[in-house]
Amino acid sequence: MIDATHDPSRRSWVESANEHPHFPIQNLPLGVFSKEDESARGGIAIGDEIFDLRAALEAGLFGGEARAAAEAAAGPMLNPLLALGATARQALRRRVSDILDANGADRARIEAARDRLLHLADDCTMHVPAAIGDYTDFFAGIHHARNGGKLNRPDNPLAANYKYVPVAYHSRASSIRASGTDVRRPKGQRLSAGREVPEYGPCERLDYEMELGIWIGPGNAHGEPIPIARAAEHIAGFCLLNDWSARDIQTWESQPLGPFLAKSFQTSISPWIVTPEALVPFRIAQPARPEGDPAPLPYLFDAADQACGGLSIDLEVLLLTEAMRDRGLPPHRMSRANARELYWTVAQMVAHHTAGGCDLRPGDLFGSGTISDPDPSGFGALLEITEAGRKPVVLSSGETRTFLQDGDEVIFRGTCRADGFVPIGFGECRGRVVG
Amino acid sequence: MIDATHDPSRRSWVESANEHPHFPIQNLPLGVFSKEDESARGGIAIGDEIFDLRAALEAGLFGGEARAAAEAAAGPMLNPLLALGATARQALRRRVSDILDANGADRARIEAARDRLLHLADDCTMHVPAAIGDYTDFFAGIHHARNGGKLNRPDNPLAANYKYVPVAYHSRASSIRASGTDVRRPKGQRLSAGREVPEYGPCERLDYEMELGIWIGPGNAHGEPIPIARAAEHIAGFCLLNDWSARDIQTWESQPLGPFLAKSFQTSISPWIVTPEALVPFRIAQPARPEGDPAPLPYLFDAADQACGGLSIDLEVLLLTEAMRDRGLPPHRMSRANARELYWTVAQMVAHHTAGGCDLRPGDLFGSGTISDPDPSGFGALLEITEAGRKPVVLSSGETRTFLQDGDEVIFRGTCRADGFVPIGFGECRGRVVG
Repeated sequence: MIDATHDPSRRSWVESANEHPHFPIQNLPLGVFSKEDESARGGIAIGDEIFDLRAALEAGLFGGEARAAAEAAAGPMLNPLLALGATARQALRRRVSDILDANGADRARIEAARDRLLHLADDCTMHVPAAIGDYTDFFAGIHHARNGGKLNRPDNPLAANYKYVPVAYHSRASSIRASGTDVRRPKGQRLSAGREVPEYGPCERLDYEMELGIWIGPGNAHGEPIPIARAAEHIAGFCLLNDWSARDIQTWESQPLGPFLAKSFQTSISPWIVTPEALVPFRIAQPARPEGDPAPLPYLFDAADQACGGLSIDLEVLLLTEAMRDRGLPPHRMSRANARELYWTVAQMVAHHTAGGCDLRPGDLFGSGTISDPDPSGFGALLEITEAGRKPVVLSSGETRTFLQDGDEVIFRGTCRADGFVPIGFGECRGRVVG
Repeated sequence: MIDATHDPSRRSWVESANEHPHFPIQNLPLGVFSKEDESARGGIAIGDEIFDLRAALEAGLFGGEARAAAEAAAGPMLNPLLALGATARQALRRRVSDILDANGADRARIEAARDRLLHLADDCTMHVPAAIGDYTDFFAGIHHARNGGKLNRPDNPLAANYKYVPVAYHSRASSIRASGTDVRRPKGQRLSAGREVPEYGPCERLDYEMELGIWIGPGNAHGEPIPIARAAEHIAGFCLLNDWSARDIQTWESQPLGPFLAKSFQTSISPWIVTPEALVPFRIAQPARPEGDPAPLPYLFDAADQACGGLSIDLEVLLLTEAMRDRGLPPHRMSRANARELYWTVAQMVAHHTAGGCDLRPGDLFGSGTISDPDPSGFGALLEITEAGRKPVVLSSGETRTFLQDGDEVIFRGTCRADGFVPIGFGECRGRVVG
């Protein structure tokens, strides 16, 4: 619901927030930060600074439900806040919006405490914001699914189940890291072309996958599916997610049970949880299924979800090579796509995931699957861009790539724009490949 | 290493332990129990009773390293104990063996406190003994892999990677439940024979899979593989595991990323962690690979592991139907197999899992994959026994089954026997299907 927190005329007394590309006062994403030797704790991004929830509690800035939510968000993991659900999260948002409002009633008293309440983001370290119980990776980017399928089955790229099942697999929670953590090139088994016996060695076809991450809120009791009409209550927020992929390992290991070590060496996420409230202005109708596509089965269909279950988020992939850094060049833009291309909504993912009785817990994470636009300028993985290495891509520096080289840094950005609203962003998800 | 805790002449003053089929004083498995309204805490099975580690700490029965281990095992989750590793676990075992020894030095003083130290297992509830960070299911039962593969690819049942890669997939941690928890028949999408459009409804081909569960100990830092020669240090214990499987859902959903909801509705485990120390007498040479099979790649080869990395554990699957219960009949034995049939050792699983840098954490759980004997009397899943439902099996009650019906209870038992040693058991892993 659009409310005063979305008002485009609202400005903050935190000057850097106004016209900030990611974190104006209309966004207010949640995260966990630490500063020097102090303990990690919850905060909210505002411009170039972080609003310290523990300090704000100590200053007595919260009452009622907002206070309960701030207390749940003041520790080193946000799971207690995610467990509380939407009402508490919304109360916190409204109160923090008022606290930071340039025209807020308490501005003078609050601004007087700014040294305690705000920290420069550049002075802080961001952490994975919750203990992730289970991490599930979906496959809802239909253009990626088709582009990947074409490489093996040119005549029939999508599996027969694709338009009925929000296909997903369990992935690895332990190796999820916050943006900025280096990505060590994994070793593994791969079968080189023309060989009959596999070797163990460093991955030779290291790739990224541009995905949206979805944070789960309260969740369900074991054995009790979440109906799609209630699914939104269990979606606590969004981030950017890089599902780093070792293609040579993946090709060799995936029969018959799917990808395993090809994905589990690391997954990177942007550290800020952008809330469903902040994204309200950027909801769109679930894109119409092309003529001839089947309707979703009834357990995956909800009229409200069809009407506004989609998300318009511009997603950019940038690549900064060692040579670009050395020469002071800007990163090369690899692609630009939009989350509206997802074939399944996040509500459909929640309904499907729980349809058999599997329990979701606060702090579980979903990946959306790689998001590609239909056009090659929006392909979300090197596998698609280079047709599995057959067509090298030429970068702005003159270098070429089939897959990632050591020293390459992959940068994701996400931005939401809608007429009449202030644009908001996700911050960045960065990771540099090291040998 | 064989030590005094394995001495077959050692008997306990807890009378029910002597000649107990599962829990003689030579076993001493770890678990988490609760009694009435008291909080859950760590205990050790001894005969028909549970030795209460918190009460034993309060009675001052531990000192030194055994005390540190008992403290780590006295709470509602055994993760702190698992994190300590083998030395602490062994010190705890030696001390508890002495405490319970009929000829123990402190017997009089200890036995005087027996009402506080021991609880009848029948009066207690057993819990999942650790917070499971990630659960990985391997596919190391080669006869199961071949039997399953034959159903789709009679001429080429094993994938090309099988004898090189300890194939595995990530599975779901949240829905793991202790033995005795009912299993609700999942709903899901399945494509009936002859249909072109899937339906959503109750699973019609519900199956069990007989597996060994492996509890992970200290684990590794992200990015630092565990060499196979060090893998044993990270294996904290074993249990029985039922990887309940919805075959109709699995067939329809698994392309191209592997099984998902077909497995995630529930996994059942026996609640006692049988330690590597208790299993020392039952270690065997890794069964020789058949003539012509490739040698393991170097990162999966260790001479000591080849010499004693296998386990001889007799595994039984029993089925108790509603009709058998009504008529007072004993359960029907579905199969009997041995863990020595696993193609990969647990050390090879640990080395492979971490080979790309994925971090294991204390309390992570592995499933071995379904363990079948080569002979049909030892097939570990209905899929194999009934050839995917084509050949119904006749039970001792005269009933037939292709897959599980509501009211069916599946019971796994595991027992270790070796000349010159007292047999030990795993207790049971039970689960009843409810509609």
